[in-house]
Parts: sequence; structure tokens; C-alpha cells
Amino acid sequence: MKLYEYARAPNPRRVRIFLAEKGLTVPTEQVDITTMQHKSPEFTAINPLQRVPALVLDDGTVITESIAICRYFEGLRPEPPLFGRGAKEVALVEMWNRRMELHLFASVAAVFRHLHPAMRELEQPQIAAWGEANKPRIVEFLGLLDRELEDRLYVAGDHFTVADITGLVAVDFLKPAKMAVPEEFTHVRRWHAQVSERPSARA
Amino acid sequence: MKLYEYARAPNPRRVRIFLAEKGLTVPTEQVDITTMQHKSPEFTAINPLQRVPALVLDDGTVITESIAICRYFEGLRPEPPLFGRGAKEVALVEMWNRRMELHLFASVAAVFRHLHPAMRELEQPQIAAWGEANKPRIVEFLGLLDRELEDRLYVAGDHFTVADITGLVAVDFLKPAKMAVPEEFTHVRRWHAQVSERPSARA
Repeated sequence: MKLYEYARAPNPRRVRIFLAEKGLTVPTEQVDITTMQHKSPEFTAINPLQRVPALVLDDGTVITESIAICRYFEGLRPEPPLFGRGAKEVALVEMWNRRMELHLFASVAAVFRHLHPAMRELEQPQIAAWGEANKPRIVEFLGLLDRELEDRLYVAGDHFTVADITGLVAVDFLKPAKMAVPEEFTHVRRWHAQVSERPSARA
Repeated sequence: MKLYEYARAPNPRRVRIFLAEKGLTVPTEQVDITTMQHKSPEFTAINPLQRVPALVLDDGTVITESIAICRYFEGLRPEPPLFGRGAKEVALVEMWNRRMELHLFASVAAVFRHLHPAMRELEQPQIAAWGEANKPRIVEFLGLLDRELEDRLYVAGDHFTVADITGLVAVDFLKPAKMAVPEEFTHVRRWHAQVSERPSARA
């Protein structure tokens, strides 16, 4: 088994944190996005979508998409459950992970990709208006999240789940996007400090 | 239990097809997006993100996000399995469902939302350049999908799964986005015809 990833990109970090929470270690190979290694013929043969992470199993099966890789490891090692347990909890973890992806992570990525000068070559065409349009959506969603976190410890309930991993990586991604969690969202800041203290956050 | 949905929107259709494949019937209530019912105080109290579908359970729990709702019903009625079975198959279904969402459905939605005159009020700001930027991505992904479907029946393998549902709804969404599957992608067209023939496609 080998995990193709890139230490400085946010999506591979989701998988690294997930593995650390499971206590799993997997051989990795770095695919440097800044030198376009993800567009090489060798890596394109592994993932035609030219994105990291990608997990290659011993039988040659390739699994791409961060959450699909996480779900594979959840199947191999179910404890601790990071995708919930039982129909209702599983649905709520899925809901919160998707809310964090669709309304936070994707918008932060749009701001970074469409406004940061370093992304001029990787994101073509860069559309500044689209980057700007995402900024108020991020603040609006963080406000909703702040109200939700007022009366619970973690994003999806009383336990740490994959939704916290997506949320942590998305919030940390605000920095390269030149944004920050507004001071008044004290519950989001409390939650972020708390999940950042877990050893897995350094993965 | 009640499912808040809208008969003409693509995401609620994913849930309707899923329920039809499971042989399940759920009481529904229409939330008319064209008259802004999804922004009403009543519906905002159910889903603060002001989107359909939303499933309200008998204990008051609200589940939003189409795939989270589907996963809830998969938990209630595991047969036939639409999210795969066993760690590897589950991961591959997740991978393909996400590929269909991230590289097809989301791009078709961007074309529709940012270029269609009917969306001028609902999508603010409408950014035509962002709509246009997504068109070549759709064609590129359909080409990749065409090569994949050359030697298998369904998107994620030999069985119909949630990835086919997302794919069917995304491909049908091309029409309001004023696009079509290019003629030369014969494998995509064969697959689309085949999944469109299932009774669930009329849900």
C-alpha cells in the first residue's frame, strides 16, 4: 500500500490527521504540486484527475478523493469511529462533514485559488470576482457554525469525527487565503483551539 | 418523518431516486425555490442554510445534504446496498460519487447558476466568467468517464450505486445548463440511456 500525497496541501492533511487518529501508519510518497509533479505521466497514470491524495492498494486498486481514502481506513480499523455509528449518527456526521466541505472548505479554496498570486499558474483562469464572492459566504457560514458550537463540544456532536478534521483543515486554510475567523465567533475559536491541541493536528 | 424537497431541483431528485431504488416512501412537502419559500422564516428554522432537501425525523432531528439523507435510509434499509459493501467497495463508491459531484455536478451547477438568466436573482453575484470556466472542465471529465465506462456497466463497477444516481442527475442537469454529452462519448451515452430506463429515474 502507498499513499501519494503532498505535505503542504490541505486535502492530504485531512488523510494524515485521520490516520493519526486511527493510530495507523502508511508508506507515503510526496507529489510536489509546485513543480507540477501531479501532472506528470507517471502520476496521471495513477490518478487521471491529477490530484493528491491517492492511495494505491497492494492489488493495484487506486482510491482517490480524501474522504474515500478515510472511509477505506474506517473499514479496515473501525475504532475509534470517525464517521459515526448507527443510521442517525452516521447521517449527522455525513451532513456536518459535507457542510464543512461545501460551505467552508470549498469557499476558502476558491478565495485562495482565485485571488492568491502564487496560484496564477495552477488555477487557470483565475477569476478574482469569484474569489471575492466567496468571502462573505465564509463569514456567514462561520456565524452559523458559531451558534451551533455554543452548546456542543464538536462539530457533529459530543465526539470528535471526520467533520472536525475537515473543519480544522478548512479553518487553517484561511491563513494562506489571507482571512481569519472573526474575533466575535468565540465558540468557533474555542473549538478550533481544542481540536488544534490534539496530537493528530500536527500530522 | 417528513422530507422537505422541491420537485424541479436536481439535489432533491437524487434523494427521490435513492428512495425509489430502496422501495421506500416518505411523506414530502414541497418548498418552492422560485417563490423563495426556502428563505422563509419557517424553513430557515428547519435548515439555516436555506436549501432543500431536508429530512425531519419524528424525534425532531433534522438531516440536510442529499447524500447524508441517502445514507440515513441506507442505514434503515441496507438492501440493495447503494453505498457498496466491504472496505474497498465502499471506498470506490465514495470515490466515484465524489468524482461525479466535484468534477461534474458542481461544474454543471456553476454553468447553470452563473450563466442562466433565470438564476439572476437566486445567484448573487452571477459571474459569467466562472460559468464559462466550468464548461471545458465538464467536457474533460466526461471524456475521462467515457474511457472508464468502456469496460464496465456502472460508474463504480458492476452494480448500480449512488454514484450512478449522482451521475444521472448531473447529466440531466446539462440540459437546463444548455449543454449536452458530446456525440463521441458513446460509452457515457450508453450508460446514461441504461440508467434512465430504470423506473427510479422517473422519481
